Amino acid sequence: MQKHYTLTELVQGLDVTIKGDPNFIITGVCTIEKSKPGCITFLTNTLYRKHLATTQAGAVILSEKDVVDAPINMIVTRNPHYVYAKIAEFFDDKPNQITGIHPTAVIGEGAEIDPSASIGPFSIIGRQVKIAAHAVVGAQCFVGDFCELGAACQLDTRVTVYHNVKIGQRSRIMSGAVIGSDGFGFANQQGNWHKVPQLGGVQIGDDVDVGANTTIDRGAVEDTVIEDGVKLDNLIQVAHNVRIGANTVIAGCVGIAGSAVIGKNCMIGGAACVNGHIKIADNVIITGMTAVTKSIQEPGIYSSGILGAVPNEEFRRNNARFHRLGNLMQRVKELESAFKALTERNES
Amino acid sequence: MQKHYTLTELVQGLDVTIKGDPNFIITGVCTIEKSKPGCITFLTNTLYRKHLATTQAGAVILSEKDVVDAPINMIVTRNPHYVYAKIAEFFDDKPNQITGIHPTAVIGEGAEIDPSASIGPFSIIGRQVKIAAHAVVGAQCFVGDFCELGAACQLDTRVTVYHNVKIGQRSRIMSGAVIGSDGFGFANQQGNWHKVPQLGGVQIGDDVDVGANTTIDRGAVEDTVIEDGVKLDNLIQVAHNVRIGANTVIAGCVGIAGSAVIGKNCMIGGAACVNGHIKIADNVIITGMTAVTKSIQEPGIYSSGILGAVPNEEFRRNNARFHRLGNLMQRVKELESAFKALTERNES
Amino acid sequence: MQKHYTLTELVQGLDVTIKGDPNFIITGVCTIEKSKPGCITFLTNTLYRKHLATTQAGAVILSEKDVVDAPINMIVTRNPHYVYAKIAEFFDDKPNQITGIHPTAVIGEGAEIDPSASIGPFSIIGRQVKIAAHAVVGAQCFVGDFCELGAACQLDTRVTVYHNVKIGQRSRIMSGAVIGSDGFGFANQQGNWHKVPQLGGVQIGDDVDVGANTTIDRGAVEDTVIEDGVKLDNLIQVAHNVRIGANTVIAGCVGIAGSAVIGKNCMIGGAACVNGHIKIADNVIITGMTAVTKSIQEPGIYSSGILGAVPNEEFRRNNARFHRLGNLMQRVKELESAFKALTERNES
Repeated sequence: MQKHYTLTELVQGLDVTIKGDPNFIITGVCTIEKSKPGCITFLTNTLYRKHLATTQAGAVILSEKDVVDAPINMIVTRNPHYVYAKIAEFFDDKPNQITGIHPTAVIGEGAEIDPSASIGPFSIIGRQVKIAAHAVVGAQCFVGDFCELGAACQLDTRVTVYHNVKIGQRSRIMSGAVIGSDGFGFANQQGNWHKVPQLGGVQIGDDVDVGANTTIDRGAVEDTVIEDGVKLDNLIQVAHNVRIGANTVIAGCVGIAGSAVIGKNCMIGGAACVNGHIKIADNVIITGMTAVTKSIQEPGIYSSGILGAVPNEEFRRNNARFHRLGNLMQRVKELESAFKALTERNES
Repeated sequence: MQKHYTLTELVQGLDVTIKGDPNFIITGVCTIEKSKPGCITFLTNTLYRKHLATTQAGAVILSEKDVVDAPINMIVTRNPHYVYAKIAEFFDDKPNQITGIHPTAVIGEGAEIDPSASIGPFSIIGRQVKIAAHAVVGAQCFVGDFCELGAACQLDTRVTVYHNVKIGQRSRIMSGAVIGSDGFGFANQQGNWHKVPQLGGVQIGDDVDVGANTTIDRGAVEDTVIEDGVKLDNLIQVAHNVRIGANTVIAGCVGIAGSAVIGKNCMIGGAACVNGHIKIADNVIITGMTAVTKSIQEPGIYSSGILGAVPNEEFRRNNARFHRLGNLMQRVKELESAFKALTERNES
Repeated sequence: MQKHYTLTELVQGLDVTIKGDPNFIITGVCTIEKSKPGCITFLTNTLYRKHLATTQAGAVILSEKDVVDAPINMIVTRNPHYVYAKIAEFFDDKPNQITGIHPTAVIGEGAEIDPSASIGPFSIIGRQVKIAAHAVVGAQCFVGDFCELGAACQLDTRVTVYHNVKIGQRSRIMSGAVIGSDGFGFANQQGNWHKVPQLGGVQIGDDVDVGANTTIDRGAVEDTVIEDGVKLDNLIQVAHNVRIGANTVIAGCVGIAGSAVIGKNCMIGGAACVNGHIKIADNVIITGMTAVTKSIQEPGIYSSGILGAVPNEEFRRNNARFHRLGNLMQRVKELESAFKALTERNES
C-alpha cells in the first residue's frame, strides 16, 4: 500500500512555514522537472524557479527568496535541501534489517554481540569482536578479530573489515568497501622489496559514511583515522596513516597518499589526489581532478591543472605550444634586449 | 580433448571468403606475432602485415586490402575483428554454468526464479525478486529485494545488486561490481552533514557489460539509467541520476559525477572524468584522462590537459614556465606598446 | 600477554651493530614523534634526527650518518627501513591462519589441495584447482576452475580468482581484488558491440602483492603477466595482455591500459595512467598523476601535466592564459618580424 502523509505530519519538528493546505496528502517525492501529482519536490537553485508555475507536484520546499505566486503548496525554510532530506526519509523503501544472527553466520570465540544487533547470512565475525546495540552487519561480511562496531552502525552486504578496526556509532559502510587492508609499505634490500608489517589499525568515528568499493588501509605503526561525520564516496583510496578531519566530504575516485593529514570541514572534488606526508588546513575546498602536491595552510578554494575538454586538434596544438614555452620565453627575452639596445642607440 | 573445427565450420553464417583450404583443421587461436601451427589469428593493423610471410598460424582473418601472396589460409572479410570475435567463441573454455539453485543459496519470500535460471553457492536473493529464463547468478552474489534480472543475464561471482534494480537481457556484471549503492547526497545543516535518502533505483538495459569492481549508484529521486548495449570497463564510478546512452563504451577508471547525461555511441577513454549536471552529445569521443567540465554539444573528439610524460626536470621547468605565463603576457604587451610608440615617433 | 624481546633477539641474523644495552627489553614499535618507552622506532630521514635527544623510545634503528650522542639504544645499519621491517615482524598481531578446510567451503571435483593448506568459510574452489603447501585461501573467496595457487601464497578474505589463473609462491592478494576478469574487448559490427572472447589467463609470479579492490584482467589470447616481486597497491586497474616486469612497484589508483609492457624495477606513482600498447623500459620512475602516452626507452624519472594546487582564481587565470597561448605566440612572431624590418630599415 502506498505511503501517505499530510504536509503537517511531514514537517513536524522542522523549522518551516507552510503556505497552502497543511492537510494536503503527499504520497512520494519527485524532481521539479519530472513532477508528479501528490508528490513533494524541492528547489535549491533559483534557475529552476520557472518550473513553479507549471509543476504538477503537490508541494515544493523552497527558500523565502524563491517564493512566487503559484498554485502549489509551499514549505518555506532557510535550508530546503535539509528539510527535503528529513521529509524524504518518510518515503524511503529500503528493506528493513531483520534483527538477530542468521544461522549461517560464523561467530568467533569470545565475540560480544548485543542482542539487538543483526548479522546477515554468510557473514563471519572474528574472535573477541564487540558489536553494540542495533548495529547491523549485512550479508557476506567479514569482521576481523578484535574489531569494535559502535551502536547502530551499519555494514551493508559484502564489506570487509580486517582485524583491530574500530567503527563508531551510526556509521555506515557500503558494499565492497575494504577497511584495514595492509598499508603499502615495502623496504628495498638489494633490489628486492620486503613487506613492512602494518601494525596499526583503523579508527572510524561516529556518523561516518564510506562508499562502495572504497579502501582504507590500516596504519603502519599508529592508526589511520577517519574522524566523526566524514563522508567518503565510492572508489576512494585512503592510504596508511592518513587522518581525515571531522565533517570533511570527499567525492568519488579520490586518492589520498600515505600520512596525509586533511583538516576538518574540507570538501574534496572527484578524482583529486592528495600527496603523501602533506597537511591540508581546515575549511579547504579542492576542486575535482586537482593534484595537491604541497601542504595548504589557508582556507580557500584550490585547483590545479588544465581542465576543460577542447576539440582534439586544439588540444594537440595547445600541448605543442606548452612544450615550446621555453623557446617562447627565450624569444621574448631576446626581443626585450634588442629593443632596449635599439632604444639606447636611438637616444644616444 | 582439444577442440578442433574446419575453417568451413568456423565461418558458417559469417560474410567471408576463404582463400586456401576450407577443410583445414583449426585447434585454437593465437596472435600474429606469437603464432602457433593449427591456430587462427587475425590482422586489423596493416603494420602487422609483414608477419604474414613468416607466421606459423594455420589461418588468418583479414581485410581484402591486407591480402598478400603468402602460404597461409586466409579468411577475407570487411570486419576481421568481428569475425575473429565470433570464431573465438568456439574456443572459449569458460566453465559452464550449472543450471539450478545451489542448496546453500538463501532465497527470499516471493522470489520468482525461472526453472532454467541458476543461483550459485552462498548467494542471496531478496524478497519478490524476479529472475528470468537462463539468467545466471554466480556464487556469493547479493540481489536485493524487488530486483528484476532479465533473460540470460549473468552476474559473475561476488556481485552486489541493491534493492529495486532492473537488469536487462543478456547483460553481464563482473565480479566485485556494486549496482544500486546509495548516491552521494548530503544536506548540510549547521555544519553537520545529513544523509539525503536515495529513493531512485537503477535501470540497466539489455546487452550491457559492467566491469569488475565498477560501482553504479542508485538515483536520488529518479533512476540512474544505463541504456542498451553500453559497455563499462573495470573500476568505473557512475554517480546517482546519471544516464548513459545506448552503445556507449567507457574504459577503466573513469568517474562520472551526478546527473551527467552521456549520449549514445560515445567512447570515453580511460581515467577521464565527467562533471556533474552536464550533457555530452551522441557520437562524442573523449580521449583518456580528459576532464570534461562543460557540456559538449557537437560530435567529435575532445581532450584536455597536458599529456605526455617528459623527463622530470623538463616537467619542472614547464610547470614553472606555466605559472609565469601571466608575467610573459604582460611583457609581450609592454613590448608591443613600446614598439608602437617607437614606430610612431620614427614616423613623425 | 605482551610480547617482549631483547635487542639481541630482535637483530639476530641482521647485519647491524648495537650501541647501548643489548639486553634491553623491547615490547613494541612506535614512531619517532609519538614515542613510547620500551618501544623500538627507526630513522630514515635526517630531518627527524632532532627527535633523538628527546624521544622516549627504548631503541632506534638508524644509519651510521645519523648517529648522535643521545641517551637511547641504537641499532646501526646501512638499511634502517629493512631492519625495521624484519624486527616489526616480531610484533605483528595479525590473526593466525587456521590450517584445514572449513566445513562450509565448497570444493570442486578433482581439486588437489595440500593437507597443509587452508580454505576459509564460504569459499569456493573450482574443479581441478591445485593448491600447494601452506597456501591460505581466506573466507568468502572464489577460485575458478583449473587455477593453480603456489606454496604459501595467501588470498585474504573475499578475493575473486577467475578460471585458469596461476599465482606463484608467497604471493598475497588482498580483499576485494579480482584476478582474471574478462579483458575489455568488443568488436563493432553495424553499430553494435560484440564481445571478443577473452581466452588468455593471468600469470602472477612469486612474491607478488596485490592490493585491495585491484583488478587484473585476463588476456585476450595470450596471458596477462605479473612477474616475480611486483607490488601493486589498492584500486589499480591492469587491463588485458599487460606485462609488468619483476620488482616493479605501483601505487594506488593507477590505470594500465591493454597490452602495455612495463619493465623491471620500475616505480609508478599514484593515479598515473599508462597508455595501451606502449613499452616502458626497466628502471623507470613515473611520478604520481602522470599520463604516459608514449613508450619510454631510457631509465629516468618522468612526469607530465601541470601539478600543484593554486588558489582557484589563479587556476582560472592560468587556464585562460593557456588557452590563449596560440595568440601569444602569434604576437611574438609579429613583433619579431616588425622589429627585424625596423632594424633593417634603420641600417639601410
